[in-house]
Amino acid sequence: EATFDPKEHQHLRYNPLRDSWVLVSAHRMKRPWAGQVEKPAEEHVPRYDPCNPLCPGNTRANGEVNPHYDSTFVFENDFPALQPDAPDPGPHQHPLFQSKAARGVCKVMCFHPWSDVTLPLMKKEEVVKVIDKWAELVEELGATYPWVQIFENKGAMMGCSNPHPHCQVWASNFLPNEPALSDRCQRAYYQKHGEPLLLEYAKQEAEKKERVVVESSDWLAVVPYWATWPYQTLLLPRRHVLRISDLTKDEREDLADIMKRLLTKYDNLFEVSFPYSMGWHGAPTGPYLEGDNSHWQLHAHYYPPLLRSALVKKFMVGYEMLALEQRDLTPEQAAEKLRNLPGEHYKTSGN
Amino acid sequence: EATFDPKEHQHLRYNPLRDSWVLVSAHRMKRPWAGQVEKPAEEHVPRYDPCNPLCPGNTRANGEVNPHYDSTFVFENDFPALQPDAPDPGPHQHPLFQSKAARGVCKVMCFHPWSDVTLPLMKKEEVVKVIDKWAELVEELGATYPWVQIFENKGAMMGCSNPHPHCQVWASNFLPNEPALSDRCQRAYYQKHGEPLLLEYAKQEAEKKERVVVESSDWLAVVPYWATWPYQTLLLPRRHVLRISDLTKDEREDLADIMKRLLTKYDNLFEVSFPYSMGWHGAPTGPYLEGDNSHWQLHAHYYPPLLRSALVKKFMVGYEMLALEQRDLTPEQAAEKLRNLPGEHYKTSGN
Ligand SMILES: O=P(O)(O)O[C@H]1O[C@H](CO)[C@@H](O)[C@H](O)[C@H]1O
Ligand SMILES: O=P(O)(O)O[C@H]1O[C@H](CO)[C@@H](O)[C@H](O)[C@H]1O
Repeated sequence: EATFDPKEHQHLRYNPLRDSWVLVSAHRMKRPWAGQVEKPAEEHVPRYDPCNPLCPGNTRANGEVNPHYDSTFVFENDFPALQPDAPDPGPHQHPLFQSKAARGVCKVMCFHPWSDVTLPLMKKEEVVKVIDKWAELVEELGATYPWVQIFENKGAMMGCSNPHPHCQVWASNFLPNEPALSDRCQRAYYQKHGEPLLLEYAKQEAEKKERVVVESSDWLAVVPYWATWPYQTLLLPRRHVLRISDLTKDEREDLADIMKRLLTKYDNLFEVSFPYSMGWHGAPTGPYLEGDNSHWQLHAHYYPPLLRSALVKKFMVGYEMLALEQRDLTPEQAAEKLRNLPGEHYKTSGN
Repeated sequence: EATFDPKEHQHLRYNPLRDSWVLVSAHRMKRPWAGQVEKPAEEHVPRYDPCNPLCPGNTRANGEVNPHYDSTFVFENDFPALQPDAPDPGPHQHPLFQSKAARGVCKVMCFHPWSDVTLPLMKKEEVVKVIDKWAELVEELGATYPWVQIFENKGAMMGCSNPHPHCQVWASNFLPNEPALSDRCQRAYYQKHGEPLLLEYAKQEAEKKERVVVESSDWLAVVPYWATWPYQTLLLPRRHVLRISDLTKDEREDLADIMKRLLTKYDNLFEVSFPYSMGWHGAPTGPYLEGDNSHWQLHAHYYPPLLRSALVKKFMVGYEMLALEQRDLTPEQAAEKLRNLPGEHYKTSGN
């Protein structure tokens, strides 16, 4: 029997945060691609567009006028999936037809007054303002809501319909599937091993180095051992931190820096403004603020869809939807590619 | 407080096959769409293309020549994600870095010698041949492999790179995440309620009618109560059936008929060859053939991506990837739309 080589031999890897497996079949990168090619992203976004509802001073769908903001700007989503006052569907009659009340709020947060910048192109101080606002929203909404989901859909490929740099913050009266699963897995690990799963994981990765993309004194960004998306990354603090609101001033500055560095690598990979969905997971809030959350470690997931080029994405379809996720290059190969890219953004280099 | 109306008030619904929840926010359909519009699908596929590796008589990437087949045709995937002889990664050193051996086979199955047909446009007898071949492959590969995943990626939007009507069959030496979860959920339900989850579910839906799309003497296609994709359907036998290979001749004919009817509704919805990923789940095989699988019920899942039109899909992105899936119309609204569409295919009507 041949000696096992992860780049040549398909194998399964365990995702301890989701208690599931991913199939790594790196030899699949050799197959030619005759399938769908995406439309190139809009490259020339105007700094200010009088018709864009996210720009300073403009009027939104509901008639409200945005202030002439000069940093971040938060407002209520005009078409919220979660509203604070939805009535209760009432008790269910049959175990196969169960529903329950869902209440919450959906906010939109602009990162910057200009439409033609993205996080990696913003100044570090400007990114710190974004982080401060995230922390503020988690404190404010987390005072009552058990879960506050900060997420960014970037690029048309990821369902984003507005090029202005922004993210969303949805707070809910329930713990959604993904954080509930992550909570369960982190708790079980903590009970068994006596330390937080992701704190131990960060230590291990910092030593092994092979999956590290960028690191700093307080932070580490790796392509996780169990990554499903080709260039997925996990951003982790080195210190035990429960929530984004617990970060010190220094840690926030260091976070702004490492985010800029990670996203610059992403943009440089295919010399395109890299599409992704990202979001923060931290210890639950609201009623959970009273409980013991020592098993939790704050982290951000980045899920970028691209596989082969700026225009060819990974399709998570048939086998992935019905059986299990499959990836076409190893996490180590992905990390190496990203790590070796220049640290200067392709749009500003040579200036 | 207002009276609960599922079309107006967001709520959570429980998916008993995946032990998870979906957020139904039907009022979200009111928001305007300024985001990504897909490329229209290729409408004029030639019946025979000398360059298409799936056509009869043509040469494939590995140099093999296809026979002049006149019904279904099965061959080994030239770029398989699973191969029968991959070496074992060996024991793991740390609980956060676990891998295990993955072995299997990947087959491709052409449905028909012509490239310009799809299942709803094929003759019923031709679709029966497809079902017979599925059953044969499940028997053959299931003799040793614990899981045989039949799946079809249809349309470029679903990562399909060849317009010739075909599906794939991947057999593995492990139970993948999704069937493992479904097995666990069906078993727990059976232990608690003494009857198979999906048999009881089909009975309930046949009575309630509001989520039924098409039905026949042996089969039922519904938009499940917990559907995540806008027009997702679940195809169920009315009788307790463990695997596709257990279907009688009559049940196969009836299945061919209901598949044609369901897929005709799909195509008629936006007058386009409807993209989707679909696949079959039945009781596990190989070593599981010895065990008790009474909790299992055979079923097919159809996951179509379209939401608003032939060119605007549902993006399962930020909140969905990081928190939980959210849908923009109720399953009842989706079922009603599909049910009320004409039974004749838009391409053949008026002929
Ligand atoms: O095997 P194919 O058709 O080349 O590939 C397609 O289906 C596979 C299984 O769902 C996916 O992993 C691929 O991303 C997709 O492009
Ligand atoms: O809220 P938006 O930006 O209009 O919508 C986008 O993000 C949502 C949350 O991930 C998704 O449900 C939508 O499918 C997507 O288009």
